[in-house]
Amino acid sequence: MFEAVEVGAKVEKAAYKKEAEKLRMELLTAQKRLPEAKVPLVVLVSGVEAAGKTTFTNTLLEWLDARGVQVHAPWTPTDEESERPPFWRWWRSLPPAGRAAVFLGSWYSDPIVGRVFKELSEAELDAELERIERFESMLVAEGAVVVKLWLHITKAEQRKRFKSLEEDAETRWRVTEQDWKFHKRYDKFRAVSERALRHTSTGQAPWTLVEATDKRHMTLTGVRAVLDALRARFDAPAAPAPKPAPPPRKASGGKNILRSLDYTLKLSEKEYDGRLAEAQGRIGKLTRRMRKEGRSLTLVFEGADAAGKGGAIRRLTRAMDARLYRVISTAAPTDEERAHPYLWRFWREVPRAGRVTVYDRSWYGRVLVERLEGFCAAADWKRAYSEICEFEEQLVAAGTILRKFWLAITPEEQLKRFKDRELTPYKQYKIGPEDWRNRAKWDGYEAAACEMIEKTSTAECPWVPVEAVDKGWARVKVAETVAEALKSEL
Amino acid sequence: MFEAVEVGAKVEKAAYKKEAEKLRMELLTAQKRLPEAKVPLVVLVSGVEAAGKTTFTNTLLEWLDARGVQVHAPWTPTDEESERPPFWRWWRSLPPAGRAAVFLGSWYSDPIVGRVFKELSEAELDAELERIERFESMLVAEGAVVVKLWLHITKAEQRKRFKSLEEDAETRWRVTEQDWKFHKRYDKFRAVSERALRHTSTGQAPWTLVEATDKRHMTLTGVRAVLDALRARFDAPAAPAPKPAPPPRKASGGKNILRSLDYTLKLSEKEYDGRLAEAQGRIGKLTRRMRKEGRSLTLVFEGADAAGKGGAIRRLTRAMDARLYRVISTAAPTDEERAHPYLWRFWREVPRAGRVTVYDRSWYGRVLVERLEGFCAAADWKRAYSEICEFEEQLVAAGTILRKFWLAITPEEQLKRFKDRELTPYKQYKIGPEDWRNRAKWDGYEAAACEMIEKTSTAECPWVPVEAVDKGWARVKVAETVAEALKSEL
Repeated sequence: MFEAVEVGAKVEKAAYKKEAEKLRMELLTAQKRLPEAKVPLVVLVSGVEAAGKTTFTNTLLEWLDARGVQVHAPWTPTDEESERPPFWRWWRSLPPAGRAAVFLGSWYSDPIVGRVFKELSEAELDAELERIERFESMLVAEGAVVVKLWLHITKAEQRKRFKSLEEDAETRWRVTEQDWKFHKRYDKFRAVSERALRHTSTGQAPWTLVEATDKRHMTLTGVRAVLDALRARFDAPAAPAPKPAPPPRKASGGKNILRSLDYTLKLSEKEYDGRLAEAQGRIGKLTRRMRKEGRSLTLVFEGADAAGKGGAIRRLTRAMDARLYRVISTAAPTDEERAHPYLWRFWREVPRAGRVTVYDRSWYGRVLVERLEGFCAAADWKRAYSEICEFEEQLVAAGTILRKFWLAITPEEQLKRFKDRELTPYKQYKIGPEDWRNRAKWDGYEAAACEMIEKTSTAECPWVPVEAVDKGWARVKVAETVAEALKSEL
Repeated sequence: MFEAVEVGAKVEKAAYKKEAEKLRMELLTAQKRLPEAKVPLVVLVSGVEAAGKTTFTNTLLEWLDARGVQVHAPWTPTDEESERPPFWRWWRSLPPAGRAAVFLGSWYSDPIVGRVFKELSEAELDAELERIERFESMLVAEGAVVVKLWLHITKAEQRKRFKSLEEDAETRWRVTEQDWKFHKRYDKFRAVSERALRHTSTGQAPWTLVEATDKRHMTLTGVRAVLDALRARFDAPAAPAPKPAPPPRKASGGKNILRSLDYTLKLSEKEYDGRLAEAQGRIGKLTRRMRKEGRSLTLVFEGADAAGKGGAIRRLTRAMDARLYRVISTAAPTDEERAHPYLWRFWREVPRAGRVTVYDRSWYGRVLVERLEGFCAAADWKRAYSEICEFEEQLVAAGTILRKFWLAITPEEQLKRFKDRELTPYKQYKIGPEDWRNRAKWDGYEAAACEMIEKTSTAECPWVPVEAVDKGWARVKVAETVAEALKSEL
C-alpha cells in the first residue's frame, strides 16, 4: 500500500506558488459553504512520526478561516475522560454543523500503537477498527464530511529527519526517546497501519495517502483531498426532506410483547409498602458499594404518556444518596445539540464512574417520537438501532450497569389517568394537547416500541417491560429489578 | 442569629397537609413561568449536618416538575476541576434561563469548613465571602433568582439524630467519622456560619434561616422562601429594553491613550525576520517549560477590524506545539450561551492547566460591540468592568499568565486595508457590510476602548497597546511581550 506513495513526488517552487494560491482560494470558498449547508467537517491528520503532521495542520489553519476551525490534539486522558467510555473524548470534540475540527492524533492512535507494542491482539485490533468504522459511518450518516489523511515517509527519511532535528540545539527537544522507540519499530508500525487503513478505508470515509517527503507536494495533496471531499458533498443531490413514516403495521393476530403482558398484576398496599422498602434498602446499600467499586448505573425509562415513569423514578432515587444520582429529562434539543449527531446530547451527559444516571425518556426518542412524527428520515431511525446498541455497549464496556424499563399501560388506563390529570390542580401541567395527539397514535407507538424492544434488548442491556396499570406493582418491579441488577453485576 | 430559629416551631399534620397541597400547586405554577420569563432559578440548600438537606431537596424535587430541575451535589473536585479556578465547577453547573438548579453543597462549603478547621484565616474567609457576594450579585444582575436556605438544628438535636441513625443497622452508614468530627466543632461551625451568613445576606440574595427540627415546618418554610423569591421577581416591573448607548464622548483635546501611540514605528524586513525568529524561539521553549510547571497562558486580542489580530496570532502559534494551544474566535453566542450569564461561554472554555488559549476577540465584546450596538443595557456593560476583572483575577490566581493586546491602527490605515481586502480574492471573506458599519462608528469604538483599557488594565492582567500600522512592528511587539511575560512569570 505505502509503496504507492514512495515515488518521490515533488513540486517546484514556482508551480507550488501558483497552485497554492488557487487552492487556498477554493478551500476558503468551500469552507464558507459549511454553515449554510449545515455540514460539520472532520479532518484527521495522521501518519508516520516526523512526516509533518503539525506543519500540515498549521498550513491548513492558515489557509482556512481560523474562526471556524478547532484543532484537537489529545494529550493523555484526564481522569474525567478515563472514567468514561474511551470514545467520550472524541464525542465531546466533534465540531457542530458549519464548523471544522482537525484531529492531530485521533481514534486511530491507541489501537495502532497498542498493536505495535503488542498490548492488543490482532483480533482485538480488528474489533477496534470495526468500532471505528461504525463510528465514522454514523458521523457521515449524520451529515459530516470526514477526511482522513495519512502522511507517509520512509524509514530512512524518518531517521534523517530525527537526526537533523537533533543536530540543532533549537530543535533537539522535539525528538524524544519515544520517537526513537517508534523508529525502531517502523516496520511493525507500517504493517499495523496498513491493516488499519485497509480495514477503515470506506467509500464514505476513505483514507488519502500523502507522500510527505516533499513538503510542497504534501501540502497540495492534503489540501486537495479536503477540498475534493467538500465539493463532493456540496455537489451531491440534496436528500429529500424526511416525511412522517407510515404508522408501523400492527402485529398480526394482535399479539406482541406489550399486549401479552398481564395488566391485572397488582399488589396490596401492605405488600407494596413492604417490598418497596426492602428493595429500597438494598438499592441504598448496593449503590454505595457500586460507587466504591467505581461502577456506574444507567437506567432508561420509556413508556406511554402517564405510564408512571416519574413516580417510579422518584421511588428509586429516594433510596439513594442525593449526591450520587442525576435524573435527566429528555426534552427538545438545544441548537448546539441539533448541530451535532443525535446521540451527542447524551454523550455529553455521560457521567463519571460511580454515578447513577436516570433518563426520563432517552435516546430511544429517535425510534419512537422522531420516527412517528417524521422528525428524521426512515433511513435515520433505521440505522439508529445499531448505533444505539453500539453506544450502550460502550457504556457497559466502561463499567456501567444498564437497564431499560418500558412502563406499559393499556389505552383505557391512559384515558383514565389523562382525565385525572385534568381534574387534579397540581397535575394539570402534566397534560396538554400533545398528549392527546400522541394518544391518537397509540397503535403506531405501540408497534414502534415492540420493534425497538426486539432490536435493542440484549443480554447486557435488556429491556424490562413493566406492567404498570397498578402503580404499586410497577414501582416494586422496577425497584426489585434494579436491586437485582446491582447485586448480580457487582 | 440562630437563636431566632431555635424556638420550637412545629406544624401539625392536618395543617401541614392542607398547606402543602396549596403550596405545591403555587410552586409548580411559579416554576412554569420560568421559561417564558427567561429566568434561571438557583436554590442553595445549606445548613447544619443532619438538619435534613437531602430530605428537603427530595421534597422540592417531588413538588417541582423534575424535568426542569438539576440537582448539583459536588463530590471531591475532579482533576479537570482542580486544574481550573475554584469557581469553574460552579460556573459550569449554573442553570440556563427557564430552568432550576438545586445546590446541595455550594460555594459556601469550602470557605466555611476551611475556616472551621483553621485552613483559612479570618481575613481569608472574608475575602472568600466577598468573592461569593460579587458572584451572586452578578448572577442576579444577569437575571437569576437566587434563593439561599440555611437549615438549622441545635447541637443537642444533631447529636440525637446521629445517635438514632447509628442505632439502626439500616442507616448506620449515614453517620461517618467526619460527621462526629463536625459535631465536636459544632460551636465553631455555628460561629463561622453566622459570620458567613451575615456577610452574604444581601438584598438581592438574602439568606432564609429555616428551623429544621420539625420536618413539616422545615418543608413549608423552605418552599415558601423559594415561592416568595419567584413571585417577587415575576411581580417586579419589567426592565426597559436596552437602547444603543450614545457614542461615548470624545476625549477632550483629542488626546487619549490610543491617539498618543506612535503609529510611524516600523521594522525593516531584516529586523523583523531576526527579532520575530528570536522571540518565537523563546516562546517555543518557554511554553514547554510552562506546561511542565502546570502554568497556563491566556492571550486576548482586541482591536479595530483589519488591525491584524489574525496575523499576529498566527506568528505566535507557529512557535508552539500544536497540542498546546487553542485559538478561540469569539462570534455570536449560541442559544445555550445566551441562556446563561454573558461570561459563561468563556468560563466553559477555560482550559486545563498547562495550556495556551488565544482569544481572537473575547469577553471584552461586552464593553465594546455590545455597548456600542445596544445589545445590553448601560447598567450591564458598566458592571462588566469589575466582573471581568474578577474573572481574570481568578484565572491568574489559578496560575494563568494573562496578557491583553489592543492592536491599534489609524482610520486611514484601516481604509487602505479594507480596500485591499476587497481586491484580494482570498481576503474577500474578511470584509463585509458590517465592517463598513463599524468603521462609521470609529470614534465611539475608540472612546470605548480607551475607557476599557483604563478600567481593566491591572498589574497582573495588563493591556498592551500595540502600534499596528506596520504589521512587522506589531507582530514583533506581541511576540516579544509574550516571551517576556513567560520569562518573568515562570
